Amino acid sequence: MNEIIQSLFDRKSVRVFTGEPVTAEEKELLLECAFQAPTAGCQQLYTILDVTDEDEKAELAELCDHQGFIAKAPVVLIFCADCRKWLEAYKAADLAPRSPGPGDALLAMADAVIAAQNVVVAAQALGLGSCYIGDILENEERVRQLLALPEYVFPAAMLMIGRPTQQQKARPKPERFPGKYTVRQNRFAGWEHMERKDFQDMFSCHTGPKNFGDWIRAFCQRKYHSDFSREMNRSAQRWLAAFFTK
Amino acid sequence: MNEIIQSLFDRKSVRVFTGEPVTAEEKELLLECAFQAPTAGCQQLYTILDVTDEDEKAELAELCDHQGFIAKAPVVLIFCADCRKWLEAYKAADLAPRSPGPGDALLAMADAVIAAQNVVVAAQALGLGSCYIGDILENEERVRQLLALPEYVFPAAMLMIGRPTQQQKARPKPERFPGKYTVRQNRFAGWEHMERKDFQDMFSCHTGPKNFGDWIRAFCQRKYHSDFSREMNRSAQRWLAAFFTK
Repeated sequence: MNEIIQSLFDRKSVRVFTGEPVTAEEKELLLECAFQAPTAGCQQLYTILDVTDEDEKAELAELCDHQGFIAKAPVVLIFCADCRKWLEAYKAADLAPRSPGPGDALLAMADAVIAAQNVVVAAQALGLGSCYIGDILENEERVRQLLALPEYVFPAAMLMIGRPTQQQKARPKPERFPGKYTVRQNRFAGWEHMERKDFQDMFSCHTGPKNFGDWIRAFCQRKYHSDFSREMNRSAQRWLAAFFTK
Repeated sequence: MNEIIQSLFDRKSVRVFTGEPVTAEEKELLLECAFQAPTAGCQQLYTILDVTDEDEKAELAELCDHQGFIAKAPVVLIFCADCRKWLEAYKAADLAPRSPGPGDALLAMADAVIAAQNVVVAAQALGLGSCYIGDILENEERVRQLLALPEYVFPAAMLMIGRPTQQQKARPKPERFPGKYTVRQNRFAGWEHMERKDFQDMFSCHTGPKNFGDWIRAFCQRKYHSDFSREMNRSAQRWLAAFFTK
């Protein structure tokens, strides 16, 4: 198989890192790969925060659902959807730009995440491990203050990067759903037409020999009905609020 | 340079394709690379629509700001953020799940875009060209009907893929902003502190010898203050509306 394709197959999340640092050259190359990603109208609607301050990392670890390993990551990058950069550029040219709306927010979010995924691919190519931290969407008030994020800027993705430990390298990559449940021809065919036995088949890659009902009830309690998930919804509403005022 | 990193640097958008088809094997491999992408809690919060119907492609080309080349793309994939899949799975297990909120929407959007970017990287590895079409966010009413998208499902990214023409291969890749304007240490340092001369420097990669003011006024008129941009904002509000009702 093509080396690049193989690398996409091999890549899995790494949450524990050896003490070895990521070099300045490696970090610079990772960031260059972010910039080289596709971007809407070549606008690069994102700003990347390179978090090197140890106290800030420790606080982020707490704010991101108390995941202490974040504080120990050699590299922490926060990809902010940034609808402020161009706004200020327009103003600097004496234009009177309209306020960013929800379409601008989604476009900037896509730009930021596309750039982040290029970093994930590049990290794998350099023998580095990476992990997304979705929890950066939580605790809007404190995260906004900590990162000094102004209006029209919000965290779209957070990555931690470092050298994987042997234990992390040995960990099997979780299975994905069979493709037939993820791809549809031409139109969305709704999950509402699926019966319990279809979901049992779809989820068997995750449940293994376990009962589908038991597995998904536990998952729902641990994830979807968790405190952090409710907090993420509360905060996301706040992150997006400015984009919804006319 | 590492082959994978080089590929990220080489990749540029391709909007015109030769008549040669993308093979079924190639498409299958691209989709497998999407599945292999990182995904929050291994949930794969997306559904990919593989648009092969010629009439549907032609209508999408019209709905995406009248870009006729979309109708001629050998492969058109729409990555939908899908907060319905797991909702239906929970219901199939007799759970009473809460309604998805804006945090769920953003998490699913990130998942969908991460998967899409893996396809972009894989396409480049196979010698195929790709281009994102952000305009899929427009015309919510007609797009929702055309793609049969239910509540809690919205298009996060659209890709067209095919074999690049010689002219497209020869086209130079647009420059990116200098890194110092895209990366900040630890905290967001606002664009509000930048003066006109800073923006002139930042934008010189795009403006070339042109006057910054003239260049950005024309850009603003063509993009940010365009009809399609206003339409994208109107529609994005509609795509997200269901996530904001309690």
